[in-house]
Amino acid sequence: MNYTKILKEIKEEVEPLFKKGKVADYIPALKRVNPSHFAMSLQLFDGTTYDIGDTNTKFSIQSISKIFTYTMAISLKEKELYKHVGHEPSGNPFNSLVQLEYENGIPRNPFINAGAIVITDILASKYKDKTFDKILDFIRRVSNNKKIDFDKEVDDSEAEFGFRNIALVNMMKSFKNIANKTDDVMDIYFKQCSISMNTKELSKSALYLANHGVDPITKERFLSESQAKRLNSLMLTCGHYDASGDFAYRVGLPGKSGVGGGIVAIVPELMSICVWSPGLNSKGNSLVGTKALELFTTKTGLSIF
Amino acid sequence: MNYTKILKEIKEEVEPLFKKGKVADYIPALKRVNPSHFAMSLQLFDGTTYDIGDTNTKFSIQSISKIFTYTMAISLKEKELYKHVGHEPSGNPFNSLVQLEYENGIPRNPFINAGAIVITDILASKYKDKTFDKILDFIRRVSNNKKIDFDKEVDDSEAEFGFRNIALVNMMKSFKNIANKTDDVMDIYFKQCSISMNTKELSKSALYLANHGVDPITKERFLSESQAKRLNSLMLTCGHYDASGDFAYRVGLPGKSGVGGGIVAIVPELMSICVWSPGLNSKGNSLVGTKALELFTTKTGLSIF
Amino acid sequence: MNYTKILKEIKEEVEPLFKKGKVADYIPALKRVNPSHFAMSLQLFDGTTYDIGDTNTKFSIQSISKIFTYTMAISLKEKELYKHVGHEPSGNPFNSLVQLEYENGIPRNPFINAGAIVITDILASKYKDKTFDKILDFIRRVSNNKKIDFDKEVDDSEAEFGFRNIALVNMMKSFKNIANKTDDVMDIYFKQCSISMNTKELSKSALYLANHGVDPITKERFLSESQAKRLNSLMLTCGHYDASGDFAYRVGLPGKSGVGGGIVAIVPELMSICVWSPGLNSKGNSLVGTKALELFTTKTGLSIF
Amino acid sequence: MNYTKILKEIKEEVEPLFKKGKVADYIPALKRVNPSHFAMSLQLFDGTTYDIGDTNTKFSIQSISKIFTYTMAISLKEKELYKHVGHEPSGNPFNSLVQLEYENGIPRNPFINAGAIVITDILASKYKDKTFDKILDFIRRVSNNKKIDFDKEVDDSEAEFGFRNIALVNMMKSFKNIANKTDDVMDIYFKQCSISMNTKELSKSALYLANHGVDPITKERFLSESQAKRLNSLMLTCGHYDASGDFAYRVGLPGKSGVGGGIVAIVPELMSICVWSPGLNSKGNSLVGTKALELFTTKTGLSIF
Repeated sequence: MNYTKILKEIKEEVEPLFKKGKVADYIPALKRVNPSHFAMSLQLFDGTTYDIGDTNTKFSIQSISKIFTYTMAISLKEKELYKHVGHEPSGNPFNSLVQLEYENGIPRNPFINAGAIVITDILASKYKDKTFDKILDFIRRVSNNKKIDFDKEVDDSEAEFGFRNIALVNMMKSFKNIANKTDDVMDIYFKQCSISMNTKELSKSALYLANHGVDPITKERFLSESQAKRLNSLMLTCGHYDASGDFAYRVGLPGKSGVGGGIVAIVPELMSICVWSPGLNSKGNSLVGTKALELFTTKTGLSIF
Repeated sequence: MNYTKILKEIKEEVEPLFKKGKVADYIPALKRVNPSHFAMSLQLFDGTTYDIGDTNTKFSIQSISKIFTYTMAISLKEKELYKHVGHEPSGNPFNSLVQLEYENGIPRNPFINAGAIVITDILASKYKDKTFDKILDFIRRVSNNKKIDFDKEVDDSEAEFGFRNIALVNMMKSFKNIANKTDDVMDIYFKQCSISMNTKELSKSALYLANHGVDPITKERFLSESQAKRLNSLMLTCGHYDASGDFAYRVGLPGKSGVGGGIVAIVPELMSICVWSPGLNSKGNSLVGTKALELFTTKTGLSIF
Repeated sequence: MNYTKILKEIKEEVEPLFKKGKVADYIPALKRVNPSHFAMSLQLFDGTTYDIGDTNTKFSIQSISKIFTYTMAISLKEKELYKHVGHEPSGNPFNSLVQLEYENGIPRNPFINAGAIVITDILASKYKDKTFDKILDFIRRVSNNKKIDFDKEVDDSEAEFGFRNIALVNMMKSFKNIANKTDDVMDIYFKQCSISMNTKELSKSALYLANHGVDPITKERFLSESQAKRLNSLMLTCGHYDASGDFAYRVGLPGKSGVGGGIVAIVPELMSICVWSPGLNSKGNSLVGTKALELFTTKTGLSIF
Repeated sequence: MNYTKILKEIKEEVEPLFKKGKVADYIPALKRVNPSHFAMSLQLFDGTTYDIGDTNTKFSIQSISKIFTYTMAISLKEKELYKHVGHEPSGNPFNSLVQLEYENGIPRNPFINAGAIVITDILASKYKDKTFDKILDFIRRVSNNKKIDFDKEVDDSEAEFGFRNIALVNMMKSFKNIANKTDDVMDIYFKQCSISMNTKELSKSALYLANHGVDPITKERFLSESQAKRLNSLMLTCGHYDASGDFAYRVGLPGKSGVGGGIVAIVPELMSICVWSPGLNSKGNSLVGTKALELFTTKTGLSIF
């Protein structure tokens, strides 16, 4: 398939939409990103890559970090995870407290904020004050890139304005579903959200999910085949908050978005994809990024359905 | 693949679970079904079938009828459907009124009861007093079987005890999301739920969904390729009520269950499957049926992820 | 106190507000009432009355009927009532299904629609097909007026458009909190809501609540002293739907409103009051009526607090 | 009336219930209070008092502090308060986040935790780092007792385990309904909850509410007549969390309870009452205290209804 041509067509078709999204404004550090950025990278198993747009520009990966911390947590204690976090779509916005209260502090899935905070807490119980280093280290391994780091300014901003996330962790603590000090857990969580990467690096990082848990280039195994299958199903049903059904309906690929405007998706047994454009739709997912992926599966027929 | 052997293994492995499920008891006609029934049928594109268990015993298809009425509605007025029903997982039980009220009478998706009732209402606006005949006719066509019919006793039972469904339709009527008389819509809806089929007939009926909308045997087209893809994504994200995420996580195939104990699933571009066992789990899906499909994808590796 | 002068002042002060309310429009029969109507009647224990405005014009008493049916139900089976209906404010609109579902079909209190429907069902279990006659008879006794009747046109309209109330009764039936056929219960309920009275008749009818359960004029006892006290506390905490707190805060008297624009209130040990003006505020209570009662307690100091 | 005799009768009648309540166990400092304590104090306008039981034993006033901080806030900026906190019963437990989220961070009333935290924030905007001193000072004035102080151990315990309150304040901060730093607001809030008083002191402190805002003994005015009336109506409709309707129904007096087991109530124009017994009912109010007040109004007829 002529991916170069397809990426070019996609870029042309989404350009008129650049101004329709709204950049995340809950923290100052994200608010001033230029909404006209666009980048898309494909990463194949043999190392071939296809890129278009601002693929060298770093952005805040935000909730995309959740797939990496969840991968780490599965390896640590798969059998126990279900006691702390479910695997059902939430039917609510990513930061909702409502359902969490009705369900006694057990988040619906690891890809809404509450669920990802629980996962961070589980890592913190194991790695103590080395937890963030371990997370960063893991992302450097899956991306095969030792230079990945977090953005201090974004981290400070999250810590200063993340009131709703602080509400979530305290509510779960009141239900005894958080083992560590809430401040410590949030320090790590805000840092993992503020890791900066570009679409090249992120598409590379998700390749193991397309290949049954093994990086096809380095041959390193990060998940068992069955674990990888399950993580992919979670991305499909829960990867885009309250628009997960719509993403599955329109795109038809497992994926995970972040409020920084990035989306990672995988085509099982073929490739991983990362698209970035900072303007968000009303559900908090990249408006242009979602459209670009919809065009991609329409043009290539590469849906899982 | 030796499907005969695989089906035999599955049957042996699920037998100890027969008594763990609970037969639907909200209507007398379903309550007295023997919970030890088990049947599983595979239907391939070339007409080959594999069957095990009580595959000639008919059961009430219940909510599995929703995939057929939704197929009919897409053909009728695809562009307008989104105004009446969404395509997001609901995060709530199949018959919940809570979310419906918060979301102004627009059901989350066509596979929860409220959504399916809206779809029936849309068909009723078109086909008037011929609506149920049209539905039955359609199911006879997809199953290529003119003898399919509904069970009068189940229908009477639904009409007598379906208070919650009557609540749903009246609530939607109050939000002006039902065009016809509520009694007329419910007459049709209760009838479509009480259609009786066996696993052979049902697996045959869903084959077009595995083959991009076209019955591979009769070559009749029921949906466009894109429509079929989207219906499959809806089955994956919303096909098992509040356990849809769990089904995707454990089984990894698009599917739709009914409280009669049946589940239909498809392996894209390969086959359709129907399993039946009347004991339900706490979420209203066949307990043994779900387990059988989980074993099937584990043994065959035929997950979409 | 010079009540004649006070009523005159109140009328003058509320006149500028006549156009601010919105007449109930959920049924045609209520929609066309002139919003500029205003009437207010005071009824003292010795038979003295004070009236101003359209005190001879009949209007639909709607939810004010709930105090009479609840009075009848208390007399019938006080000890059992708590199993069917609570006595807490609901914190939700008068016709909400949300809370009802979370609380398993037991309405919060007898003054929201669901609660009043349960009360009607309890009366229907006792009086069978004589139930509405018994209700009408009771209201004729408390008003000492044999000519009170219901408005057939309003009743027909309620039956035709009362979808949400039909949803409520069916939901409660699904929780087994309705003993009779839902259609039969709703027939009675819609009739009781469509009873027509004027402010003179209604103020007279509530006098027993101001006098410890005994009509001070006819000396007939309708409730024990303790029962009357409790019904008054229910009017204070739950009498105005989701604006009950606001009514208590601004007016400070036990009262009950209806969407026909009437409000009945009592000053314990002194008098009963009825005010009517059909324009409603956003919570479904008479806008001008609420203001008139607020002015009344401000001018007279007759609050219970 | 022979109050001495009535108090004695009440004590005898409630004694069998001492073991039925459950002492608050969310913080260690409250958990070890002996559940068999009982004290009741009446305070009349002429200075006469009637006491029975452990009326010299101090306990944690907890949410009873909310009536004093709300009194202070009304004096500061009455006209603006409604923008920050409503005056409707909540229909939910005292620390629920659900309703708060649906209503955009504006608490239902000042007597649920969220509402009281907002009130503390309003005081903090005015009094800065002197806020708690001002609160303590105010309570010393209404109780006419300079020795009132807070319990450091309870305060530490609240700060350590008050996760749900920290969740509430952060959620409201995310809706911009908290002006100060959340940690600062909670420091003050936890301190005000940990103030220790006995029933003599507390009954004295609430006397101004029974007397139109003026302490009848010192003649000091704390609220205008209209403000006092409104605060009393709030106590009646919202003073006992999700059991406010039940308290009004059974007791019929404006009152406010705390999880320390205290309840303050007033009989307008006659007296203030404080009862204390640490065992709580399922709604978080003193089980024995509620019963004692019910017996009091039954025996004396002193209900406002």
